[in-house]
Amino acid sequence: MIILNRTMNIFINPDRKNWKEILARPEINNADLRMQVASLLNEVRSGGDRKLIELTERFDGVKIPGIQISGEDINSSINFISPELIKSIGIARHNIEKYHAVNGKADSPIETSAGVSCWSRTLPVEKVGLYIPGGTAPLFSTVLMLGIPARIAGCNEIILCTPPGPDGSIHPSILYCAHILGIEKVFRVGGAQAIAAMAFGTETIPAVDKIFGPGNRFVMVAKQLVSLENVAIDMPAGPSEVAVIADDTADPAFVAADLIAQAEHGPDSQVLLVSTDPGLAEKIEVEIDLQLSVLPRREIAEKALNNSRMVVMEKRADIPDIINSYAPEHLIIMCRDYAGIGNQIKSAGSVFMGHFTPESAGDYASGTNHTLPTGGYASVRGGLELRDFQKRISFQEISQEGLQNLGPTIMCMAKEEKLSGHSFAVEVRLNKISGKQA
Amino acid sequence: MIILNRTMNIFINPDRKNWKEILARPEINNADLRMQVASLLNEVRSGGDRKLIELTERFDGVKIPGIQISGEDINSSINFISPELIKSIGIARHNIEKYHAVNGKADSPIETSAGVSCWSRTLPVEKVGLYIPGGTAPLFSTVLMLGIPARIAGCNEIILCTPPGPDGSIHPSILYCAHILGIEKVFRVGGAQAIAAMAFGTETIPAVDKIFGPGNRFVMVAKQLVSLENVAIDMPAGPSEVAVIADDTADPAFVAADLIAQAEHGPDSQVLLVSTDPGLAEKIEVEIDLQLSVLPRREIAEKALNNSRMVVMEKRADIPDIINSYAPEHLIIMCRDYAGIGNQIKSAGSVFMGHFTPESAGDYASGTNHTLPTGGYASVRGGLELRDFQKRISFQEISQEGLQNLGPTIMCMAKEEKLSGHSFAVEVRLNKISGKQA
Repeated sequence: MIILNRTMNIFINPDRKNWKEILARPEINNADLRMQVASLLNEVRSGGDRKLIELTERFDGVKIPGIQISGEDINSSINFISPELIKSIGIARHNIEKYHAVNGKADSPIETSAGVSCWSRTLPVEKVGLYIPGGTAPLFSTVLMLGIPARIAGCNEIILCTPPGPDGSIHPSILYCAHILGIEKVFRVGGAQAIAAMAFGTETIPAVDKIFGPGNRFVMVAKQLVSLENVAIDMPAGPSEVAVIADDTADPAFVAADLIAQAEHGPDSQVLLVSTDPGLAEKIEVEIDLQLSVLPRREIAEKALNNSRMVVMEKRADIPDIINSYAPEHLIIMCRDYAGIGNQIKSAGSVFMGHFTPESAGDYASGTNHTLPTGGYASVRGGLELRDFQKRISFQEISQEGLQNLGPTIMCMAKEEKLSGHSFAVEVRLNKISGKQA
Repeated sequence: MIILNRTMNIFINPDRKNWKEILARPEINNADLRMQVASLLNEVRSGGDRKLIELTERFDGVKIPGIQISGEDINSSINFISPELIKSIGIARHNIEKYHAVNGKADSPIETSAGVSCWSRTLPVEKVGLYIPGGTAPLFSTVLMLGIPARIAGCNEIILCTPPGPDGSIHPSILYCAHILGIEKVFRVGGAQAIAAMAFGTETIPAVDKIFGPGNRFVMVAKQLVSLENVAIDMPAGPSEVAVIADDTADPAFVAADLIAQAEHGPDSQVLLVSTDPGLAEKIEVEIDLQLSVLPRREIAEKALNNSRMVVMEKRADIPDIINSYAPEHLIIMCRDYAGIGNQIKSAGSVFMGHFTPESAGDYASGTNHTLPTGGYASVRGGLELRDFQKRISFQEISQEGLQNLGPTIMCMAKEEKLSGHSFAVEVRLNKISGKQA
């Protein structure tokens, strides 16, 4: 394994036994944070609205007069954003709705045995809470990504929490997206205290069944802790990641732009480039330097790129394996045979196929969801989708003949498990049926 | 609210404001247990197989010579169980396969905008671990309920952990079910230490991506704790529950049998009867006494029944509401209008419709899964199903024309979120396209 260290760490044809080390993500130890967040959750649980206002002053540095955003503020948000953005949000919404709507279908009954009919019914999670992080920019796109499937699912109550800005207000693009999706309950509370409020409820904020949305480590730990009680959460969320596979057909400027786009998310962003072509690395390095020089978030991106990894693999057949071992949140395939490689991907959150499909498309407007599994969690699930806002209840109905057919099977198995009450629940019915027939 | 206290606690036409109190589940405080289990998990993480054998001796009271069950023992299990049971398992397997197989369909691509094609691919979770609890009876039915969807999904590695009996062996009915499903890796380890082994891996037991299966409080807390790291789990599992809705058409003997079947699971089983008919309560009480007198697990069932609740609601329209507030794991509807009531159910794990559909059917052999949400978790999800063993990866491919169409939308939104690198990843491609065209 030859390691070169320029902007990115470069590994040439690494041996399979070194993959684990190369692909290792930074270890996150949240044990201490968990203690700290747990006590904050308890404060909100007992202190309610008053405590939320106090914590907002402490953490967000703003004294808010009340928690809920008025309907008037939500409705008038359209006056504060540009026509171009209104149009863009409209197109993104259309695409996201179109992609997310197809997942939910009612199943028709299945007769598993004669007289035994089983079916399932898909229903919305009734009350959902959407968390939209604050920070340097208004993440209104996340309102679309969470709110649209919630709406399609038919959730009965959709509430939204987001931290207030320095003047106590919420950015109009966030309010506008809430407005067009008919989300009426918007609260200016952020951080772990917002998660606590949605989990336990306060005088103003209703408790919900399930909490969705990204956030910093405090938010993530708070979500994990409340999920140990009675509230569900969407999925764990860690630092964002992209893997790019590039061969000699890839345009170094495209690759550089995609790596930088990932890196600008934050200094802990994870970037992995797998290339078939040793020469490509150098060209991409040059392009990265060029593009970074004009990037506003240059400092953030540079930090992330310094921790990033470039792996040269001249043995093409190994490439899907190393990607599957890593299970990246995003995967961009810029190769001649991107379709063939795509077919061999077993673990990734969302895959971007070919040279003209940047990750940014899925981040905003192509239709797929941008809430995706990080930290290797793509080995067990994909991105957020309609079914995350739904539940499927199983139903069954057995006719008298059906119970006569299947009853002996049930009784035999129940007795073997020493649950004779279970067996008798069948027997008492079979007795009645045969009594009637007798 | 009139409360009568006989075997069950009886509430007559309770006011809506008292529902919460009536439906309250016992509070479970696992904070102390979590500390204890966390340290055990760490012991296994560092101690591996040696530690597993030591803990098995401590907790299961048996010194096992090795952890893995031999292929010969698995294959020969058929010789130790009755032909009747073999036949019953075969029928149950057929029904469970038939019910679970229909869920997984590949989605065809959706053109969300011109030139923007999005699709998803359903793939198995590669490595899954099934936990089968020990105790007084061999829960081989759970092997079917976990193993069948894992097989249909196409999971690459399916391992099974279950505690050894006093002689160090595993019950042949468990091994037989593993055998017919082709599960070759069976380990005689139980409790929190088994969860640790499947989460972290040992010399003998491979680490898995997702852990499934019920267990006692130690197992549940261990699953929750490992799920805070990198391993996924199926769902939280608490004491089992049934709610029964019965009107004057219900046979008191059927109702009593179903309540007792639930109660025999354990002293913490939750039983709720909602009846439209004040007279029915008395008849059911009489039947319960009669049936209990011959029940082998009478003591366990009596304890659970003493904590159970019977609610009389003469206002039929309120019945679906009180059931939805409770969100029971199992719901049996024995009413004239069971179909109408079933249509109004919004939160329940699995619903059993009509007089001849006992819960036992779904527990063993009708086809639906018996791994169901407890503790009110039915408000957010249904029972285990094929998709719990799968993940859905989103894919997208954008043509040059597609990027020309959608690019400005993406760039506008990215700039509003102050992510200019995201915008440039589109711009650099649009420049190349227009350069080519110029």
